[in-house]
Amino acid sequence: MKKLTAFVVSGLALAFTAPASAQFAKAEDAIKYRKSALFVMAQNFGRVAAMAQGKVPFDAKVAADSATTAEFVSKLPWAGFGPGTDKGETRAKAEIWSDKARFDDLAGKMQAEMAKLAVTAKSGDLDAIKTAVNATGGACKACHDDFRGK
Amino acid sequence: MKKLTAFVVSGLALAFTAPASAQFAKAEDAIKYRKSALFVMAQNFGRVAAMAQGKVPFDAKVAADSATTAEFVSKLPWAGFGPGTDKGETRAKAEIWSDKARFDDLAGKMQAEMAKLAVTAKSGDLDAIKTAVNATGGACKACHDDFRGK
Repeated sequence: MKKLTAFVVSGLALAFTAPASAQFAKAEDAIKYRKSALFVMAQNFGRVAAMAQGKVPFDAKVAADSATTAEFVSKLPWAGFGPGTDKGETRAKAEIWSDKARFDDLAGKMQAEMAKLAVTAKSGDLDAIKTAVNATGGACKACHDDFRGK
Repeated sequence: MKKLTAFVVSGLALAFTAPASAQFAKAEDAIKYRKSALFVMAQNFGRVAAMAQGKVPFDAKVAADSATTAEFVSKLPWAGFGPGTDKGETRAKAEIWSDKARFDDLAGKMQAEMAKLAVTAKSGDLDAIKTAVNATGGACKACHDDFRGK
């Protein structure tokens, strides 16, 4: 038990000595977290989008599972955009923090579209999925246009 | 509509020209996917572990939410360990593919412990959470010991 405890502390939780309000041990972790979550989401969304575009054969189960995962993960990145996480390995523009209300609004809209896509994907209706994929892709793009640098 | 379609194709789905069986466009994406998912999982698990270790004050809601996220995301990395994903930016050892049955078994055990932790975290019982965190941390370690390089 003691050994396992030591592992947990040394391996994963060591850096959590900041106040409980600080969700991440350091800004670098927050940046990596949001990028990781967005990548996992994009891979799952991209799989559904590829089917919607006829790039890969439509598989209703894979589409439904991928959309469900994309929806769940779409809720995660935003915790990683806290104050002080604007510098580092990131394409995040300063406007995320200077125009936070608009950023939050666009992030919320994307999540809403992703949730609709997850519902639609479960229906197995490919035409409806195409429409939902386009709406979701548009919501991704609206935010990237203003808040993601090159 | 056409513009959004073009966005979706060019932005996310372009590379999905491989057969439907290939979940990832390239090995590099699979490796990035599993690392991203494991990082998101570890951050959420680490938050609960930090509370279990007394490193940060116990917050029952944060613990429950983090454990739920860790459980969901614990199911994702394994798709990224397909054939041909053993080379590149990875610490994954060759034994993952040469002793796949054991790797899958340990990965399954970790997911089972993470699921138990998620249930336990919802109870708000800190002592039970400590026990579940140790069991989960042990399951992470068992796999890392044999299958993750330096």
